Amino acid sequence: MAAGLQAPNPEDLLAVEGMRIGTARAGIRKPGKRDLLVLQFDPGSVASAVFTRNRFCAAPVHVCRKHLSESQGLIRALVVNTGNANAGTGQAGLMLAQETCDHLASMLQVPASQVLPFSTGVIHEPLPFDRLIAGLPEALQAAELGSDGWLQAAEAIMTTDSLPKAASMAVECGGKRYHLSGISKGAGMIRPNMGTMLAVIVCDATISPGLLDCWVKDISEQSFNRITVDGDTSTNDSFLLVSTAAKSSSTGSVIDTDEHPDAAPLKQAVLQLAQRLAQAIVRDGEGATKFITIKVEQAASQTEASQVAYAIAHSPLVKTAFFASDPNLGRILCAVGYAGIDDLDVQKVDLFLDDVHVASQGGRHPDYQEEAGQRVMKQQDITVRVILGRGLEETTVWTCDFSHDYVSINADYRS
Amino acid sequence: MAAGLQAPNPEDLLAVEGMRIGTARAGIRKPGKRDLLVLQFDPGSVASAVFTRNRFCAAPVHVCRKHLSESQGLIRALVVNTGNANAGTGQAGLMLAQETCDHLASMLQVPASQVLPFSTGVIHEPLPFDRLIAGLPEALQAAELGSDGWLQAAEAIMTTDSLPKAASMAVECGGKRYHLSGISKGAGMIRPNMGTMLAVIVCDATISPGLLDCWVKDISEQSFNRITVDGDTSTNDSFLLVSTAAKSSSTGSVIDTDEHPDAAPLKQAVLQLAQRLAQAIVRDGEGATKFITIKVEQAASQTEASQVAYAIAHSPLVKTAFFASDPNLGRILCAVGYAGIDDLDVQKVDLFLDDVHVASQGGRHPDYQEEAGQRVMKQQDITVRVILGRGLEETTVWTCDFSHDYVSINADYRS
Repeated sequence: MAAGLQAPNPEDLLAVEGMRIGTARAGIRKPGKRDLLVLQFDPGSVASAVFTRNRFCAAPVHVCRKHLSESQGLIRALVVNTGNANAGTGQAGLMLAQETCDHLASMLQVPASQVLPFSTGVIHEPLPFDRLIAGLPEALQAAELGSDGWLQAAEAIMTTDSLPKAASMAVECGGKRYHLSGISKGAGMIRPNMGTMLAVIVCDATISPGLLDCWVKDISEQSFNRITVDGDTSTNDSFLLVSTAAKSSSTGSVIDTDEHPDAAPLKQAVLQLAQRLAQAIVRDGEGATKFITIKVEQAASQTEASQVAYAIAHSPLVKTAFFASDPNLGRILCAVGYAGIDDLDVQKVDLFLDDVHVASQGGRHPDYQEEAGQRVMKQQDITVRVILGRGLEETTVWTCDFSHDYVSINADYRS
Repeated sequence: MAAGLQAPNPEDLLAVEGMRIGTARAGIRKPGKRDLLVLQFDPGSVASAVFTRNRFCAAPVHVCRKHLSESQGLIRALVVNTGNANAGTGQAGLMLAQETCDHLASMLQVPASQVLPFSTGVIHEPLPFDRLIAGLPEALQAAELGSDGWLQAAEAIMTTDSLPKAASMAVECGGKRYHLSGISKGAGMIRPNMGTMLAVIVCDATISPGLLDCWVKDISEQSFNRITVDGDTSTNDSFLLVSTAAKSSSTGSVIDTDEHPDAAPLKQAVLQLAQRLAQAIVRDGEGATKFITIKVEQAASQTEASQVAYAIAHSPLVKTAFFASDPNLGRILCAVGYAGIDDLDVQKVDLFLDDVHVASQGGRHPDYQEEAGQRVMKQQDITVRVILGRGLEETTVWTCDFSHDYVSINADYRS
């Protein structure tokens, strides 16, 4: 099930110069599943990333942070396995993540610090290291084939995802044409706090590591950090932005500030891709049948806008009402009420469901008719708009409904 | 479904001197359901209460606060309807709650400020005031019958509850025998923040309003404020403690400090009753099949102990794993990791499932076997113990699992 999400059309996915894609069936958890991905990057490629703030963060996240720091952002390869998160695995897990990089680095004849590891899957189980390593030659062989295998790459990182998530954009700047392609995965344990496991966007423009750092933070805040499926911040969330430096810029100089003429259109394209990939995760949320946009307006601060948006987005009662297409909208007011704004004046709160004015002055809007609420609740895409009447800040969060299938998927996930 | 909860045995429920119980079938939402409760108290009865901190708190909560303040805790009656929460109903709802009290007060010839109204049910729909008022004579007639109708009282306040919740205790102090009886309701929208809609405990001892105030706050913190079903703090949560003053104390003086010889045993009895009624709500949690006790130990503060306990208790992934009896315990570590303790050292965290040592030093405990985890997960009652290794504070929270039936119940609730 997925709320308005389709598999990407391979023809829409653009090859990005300066990199190659390879996948393998390594049998990490289940035999026959494409579960190993290697991306290789040409010399000069740089990356920046944001990772989960979960204190039980996975071993590969620790290694990624260390390598990106040691290599000052230079990157030659990344390796992703699904089926096992290598999280909650202590010192032993940390060593295996490091040895994965060492192994791939020696196969590719590159520094180990320029190899980044990623894992996703079940937490608290030992990583099947031997099977992972045994799968690498197949992935590297595939990598010889070229840079247009984004659909296979997206498939190779799926866990409970029902569809692969990949997207591309082309950007024209002063006669230059850049390609950007990205993939993401995730359907449950989704409430990213710095990025989500795993999203990668690769671009062939020549962008400085410093500017990439700024962009990855700004953009994750407006995309992956604005989605939630179940409120569970994963141990493995990671969002990686890579520049292969395969194409010089329209001025010939490295794109190293937002004032560079190529910067604004490129950043806008990365943001659009990131939002598309983030929203794809929500549309493919475990058991999702509805895609819900929650806008909170006229808040006194970003913090309280987020508090209200996430209180609504995480309420199991609100989410099951969406599943049932039931305009039981008092549940939304209830969530606004317990979001933690101690001095909220409910007389000033307005609630809209798409264009329908549901509540005002602490109660029902006089013109509200249940039929109008019912009409909107039956849609696949719904916007909830809460106006707090306290200030000028606003935020948007994307989420999905809560269905029987969420319970089925998560009660059966390991089996 | 209910996890280890049975209907109370009427023979275990004790009459409390100084009060009478009446119920009626008023047809508030559905015809034929017992949905109206009136408790009448003798002159001299005093009450103290805690209410929801939800900013969209219900109209009757506003009126209760006002009346308790005006009457300085004196109480002659309370009236409870189910089927409609009278919340999110604005100024109109407030007037109807007040008029309900005025009406009952004039029937009983008591001051309106000594009548407290309570409502529970669907939010954001107009209160069917006429049907409520029309049901009062039947409830008052029943009230003539006596003070042992606690089971009917518990039935009259049920919404999605599958079983009535009532309990009694007798306390002996220096030759005096006091009776305490209480009722509670609730199964969903349960994450009380000051008490839960609705719990009432009545005692025939003579306790001062000031001491009642202290007790109701202390006791709610250790009972109703330590339970959660779905994390949704209701608009109507209320916990009311009433002393009918029907019996003088063992010393003859009012029980007005914790130093009074009757105070300690009475307070302990109220706490035990409150915990029993609170735990009954969790055991009857919507769709619940498991009763989970979450203990967090060695925290640096009460705040962080609660953060960790509620992160686990609210995680849909943890709750569905309990439903499936699947020892997918990495999900618990994940919740500990995102609970918001920025400087948590995961090397110092230990996780136990009942007596099974699951995790230590950031990974699996060396002796942990999946079969041992499986054995505990199959039980109906399970204790999760998280040791943070940071300090001396600890807390306990009670919750339930998350099943298909939770979704069914809440997707169908209004139909």
